[in-house]
Amino acid sequence: MTADGEELLARLPFPLHPDCMARYEDGSVLIADRRRFPFEEVSLRCGDVEEVAAAIEDMVTQGAGPPMAAACALVMVANQAATDSDPLAGLRTARDRLVATRPTNTGLRRVLDGGLEAAATAQTERRPLAASLRAWLEDTKGRYYRRALRTARIAAELVETGDGVLTMCFAEAAFVLAMAIAQESGKDPTVYVPETRPYLQGARLTAPCLVRMGVRTRLVTDGMPAFLMAQGRIQKYMTAADVVTMDGHVVNKVGTYLCAIAARRHQIPYYVLSGGPDPACPGPAAVVIEERDPAEVRSCRGVPTTTADVDTYYPAFDVTPPDLVAGIVTEQGVLDPFRLGDRYPRSGRT
Amino acid sequence: MTADGEELLARLPFPLHPDCMARYEDGSVLIADRRRFPFEEVSLRCGDVEEVAAAIEDMVTQGAGPPMAAACALVMVANQAATDSDPLAGLRTARDRLVATRPTNTGLRRVLDGGLEAAATAQTERRPLAASLRAWLEDTKGRYYRRALRTARIAAELVETGDGVLTMCFAEAAFVLAMAIAQESGKDPTVYVPETRPYLQGARLTAPCLVRMGVRTRLVTDGMPAFLMAQGRIQKYMTAADVVTMDGHVVNKVGTYLCAIAARRHQIPYYVLSGGPDPACPGPAAVVIEERDPAEVRSCRGVPTTTADVDTYYPAFDVTPPDLVAGIVTEQGVLDPFRLGDRYPRSGRT
Repeated sequence: MTADGEELLARLPFPLHPDCMARYEDGSVLIADRRRFPFEEVSLRCGDVEEVAAAIEDMVTQGAGPPMAAACALVMVANQAATDSDPLAGLRTARDRLVATRPTNTGLRRVLDGGLEAAATAQTERRPLAASLRAWLEDTKGRYYRRALRTARIAAELVETGDGVLTMCFAEAAFVLAMAIAQESGKDPTVYVPETRPYLQGARLTAPCLVRMGVRTRLVTDGMPAFLMAQGRIQKYMTAADVVTMDGHVVNKVGTYLCAIAARRHQIPYYVLSGGPDPACPGPAAVVIEERDPAEVRSCRGVPTTTADVDTYYPAFDVTPPDLVAGIVTEQGVLDPFRLGDRYPRSGRT
Repeated sequence: MTADGEELLARLPFPLHPDCMARYEDGSVLIADRRRFPFEEVSLRCGDVEEVAAAIEDMVTQGAGPPMAAACALVMVANQAATDSDPLAGLRTARDRLVATRPTNTGLRRVLDGGLEAAATAQTERRPLAASLRAWLEDTKGRYYRRALRTARIAAELVETGDGVLTMCFAEAAFVLAMAIAQESGKDPTVYVPETRPYLQGARLTAPCLVRMGVRTRLVTDGMPAFLMAQGRIQKYMTAADVVTMDGHVVNKVGTYLCAIAARRHQIPYYVLSGGPDPACPGPAAVVIEERDPAEVRSCRGVPTTTADVDTYYPAFDVTPPDLVAGIVTEQGVLDPFRLGDRYPRSGRT
């Protein structure tokens, strides 16, 4: 990594900072509490796998956070299980519990399976399990941030001077870094951030993180993007993805598809920042769209928005088909969503 | 009006009820406080024009409420000014202050100008001003509800058995009546209601009103409509309009246009319930899109959603072009948005 890159990563705000997003420390997993940011910068300490799983289910962290927190949980289990007769059994139980927390983002499963593989290899090679998993965690984390930085540099190239960039939800380190790089190269973008109800990831995470990185930012409500486009304020639409399928469908926070349709009407290109498609997901039918507790739609930061007799519905993600996607931005470059198989193998783990 | 119609109107929930939306009583204007519904059913008492104007600006009422409250305010002024040497002067001052409260909805101006005309006629004919304006108010209110009921019956005809109907914001009495009529005729619609941030008119007004009228209702967030469409849950999209221009553009709560684009992609017809186009608005350039205090985007029911260092932007309305509109539903029938001039005169007051 270049010195420039190190400096950028070190400036990442609390929920994204390499030392804070999730870490293993003294027998516990510490997770930056995204529910309390930007009002407070505090971490939640989890002493066992169940506490980590509950934290992920309760949205203490989301997006790139759950895979990172789950990886830390494996290290915690490996430390606790070092003297067990079958230490891998505890890791497998942890893996199954953690995979079940959020069904849509397959990154969680992929990271955990990588951890189990590292553990099995360590056992075969008779290396100490805990130390091996700690090394694997550092390696996983390092790869995540290097990939985010490479993806960010490519995404920043897509931004033109003076662009208005619409995003959705919280597109994690790659997007925040991309906008910071565009800003520092003098392109002076303005990022329009929909608040992303019901959890307000846009209002609470994306907008404050961009502001702290020195990027001009305007928070709007989730109904405003098409009007911003009609006003000529938006030149690019960029989001992350919870999953990109091999046939180019983008699964991301609900609301992403609505804006992608509007972007198409206004001839605004939609770019998806991604770690790459999931080879285990040939198409959208392979992805489970999580439906969360409908009651969560009836309140905002704990305050009721309506009465309890009103029924609600809460699908947490939606699916944008490849015809609405201008490019999948990965560390390999800007890929045609219809030709992902050319660059990524259709089977095996990436 | 039929007995059926009277019965339906009498069942309208508090914010829409003919006796509650806004009324003149004992020298004051009483306005159903839509900020406190559905948690409370209370009215705000306004003792002078400035208090009515401030109530409209503070969103105590919106949609059809401001014209009704403003009409009541004219009656209040006429009662107070009965002994003035130039009682019309006070009415004109009141008219100007009230028109300035909300720039987008031209219904406010049209109702107030109607009241000034009624007052001038009364003076010319030497009839008592206060009594004449009270009669005008009753007439205005009666016409509003009869028109809402006729429009509702036509809109209910457009609903087919089992339809999912998407709406946006609070489409007032005509929409709530339409869904109640569709329900009572056995069509059993399900209405999907986006919460409509930042003021939550969907969550606080539309959804509770529909539930109280016995209509199956599901509250969602503003980012979900396109995904509901992709799931096949939506067969019609119906909203009100703050203004319909003579060339068929629909000005309504921001978010309306976003869903209209998505409806077109999914071949779902979009119907607009309206009192008719505004002959004084040939096209969208004649409409001022109100921009409200950006700080309102940074909170939800008084609770901050982000930190104060985040810039926000709050256009309150958007504009949907006629190519996305299947029909303008008025008391005259379902009109082609491209041919409104055939039914409505291009000049003069309707």
